[in-house]
Amino acid sequence: MIYFVTGNKNKYEEIKRYLSEKIEMKSIPYPEIQADKIEDVALHGIEFLKEKLNENFFVEDSGLFIKALKGFPGVFSSYVFKTIGNEGIKKLMKGIKDREAEFISVIAFYDGKINIFKGVCRGKISEEIKGRGGFGYDPIFIPYGSRKTFAEMSIEEKNEYSHRGKAVRKLKEYLDEKFRD
Amino acid sequence: MIYFVTGNKNKYEEIKRYLSEKIEMKSIPYPEIQADKIEDVALHGIEFLKEKLNENFFVEDSGLFIKALKGFPGVFSSYVFKTIGNEGIKKLMKGIKDREAEFISVIAFYDGKINIFKGVCRGKISEEIKGRGGFGYDPIFIPYGSRKTFAEMSIEEKNEYSHRGKAVRKLKEYLDEKFRD
Repeated sequence: MIYFVTGNKNKYEEIKRYLSEKIEMKSIPYPEIQADKIEDVALHGIEFLKEKLNENFFVEDSGLFIKALKGFPGVFSSYVFKTIGNEGIKKLMKGIKDREAEFISVIAFYDGKINIFKGVCRGKISEEIKGRGGFGYDPIFIPYGSRKTFAEMSIEEKNEYSHRGKAVRKLKEYLDEKFRD
Repeated sequence: MIYFVTGNKNKYEEIKRYLSEKIEMKSIPYPEIQADKIEDVALHGIEFLKEKLNENFFVEDSGLFIKALKGFPGVFSSYVFKTIGNEGIKKLMKGIKDREAEFISVIAFYDGKINIFKGVCRGKISEEIKGRGGFGYDPIFIPYGSRKTFAEMSIEEKNEYSHRGKAVRKLKEYLDEKFRD
């Protein structure tokens, strides 16, 4: 049994289909620090949770970093989404030509020691909010190699490109190795 | 001797003129959590710092809460300022009629126990970025009772209205009482 500590059902749905081990969603709030790097948020979460859980577990933290906005919303992506949302990002990006952005996902897995798995997906911010799938910033992000936003893709298609898909495939490799025998 | 733990010289300049006790600026970074309330950020800071300092000390945390943006940038005001800045806020507020906002300042003073002093300043977000004084969001905030932004005021005038001025006057009352004898 592995716990995935998150309050976000969408993330759980995206991740669990990758892993052959039994995964259980645990909704335990953990303090998120104001850091510059997603890694630091995840590591801080592990430090808080490791005394509280007696199974292997992981957390996943992610963020959208927009180059022309100096990395905004970055590690505060979740808060920014809840307040100004995609409409806010669209407004901020109005008239800006450089639409480059990256999504970063960090999975921190704890099994007595901390293991970090990172996935990055480069792409651009769309001019329009498009699609009904996914969650969060998916309707405004177009990964390189596609003409669709994440929200216009099926979960399978999104996972092929996505930061979270890349991070979870690294976690899977680690788990397959660890539990091989 | 009282330590004011901050990396922000502007805050130090605003605050020290109020207090008759000897104040020293200490630039010790402390982890800021992602909380909804300024109070929680300040309290978390105190918990981290109290083992490290052997004098009375305080921290000050503040934020700008814009009603039409659901409280954005709020506790993340400092990060948001460093990324999208006043130009970003101006863009986000373009075409929005309800320009109501409040600045909140929380001073947490530690002298063996934690004392919280809070100041609130209501006002509105200006249509234009105006003035060269102050720092941070001062050029876009007009307090009720004035037609000038904080950045168009002298420090003295700003302090009369400001959230930080209100919080520090409460701290001063407490200190005057405490050290009366």
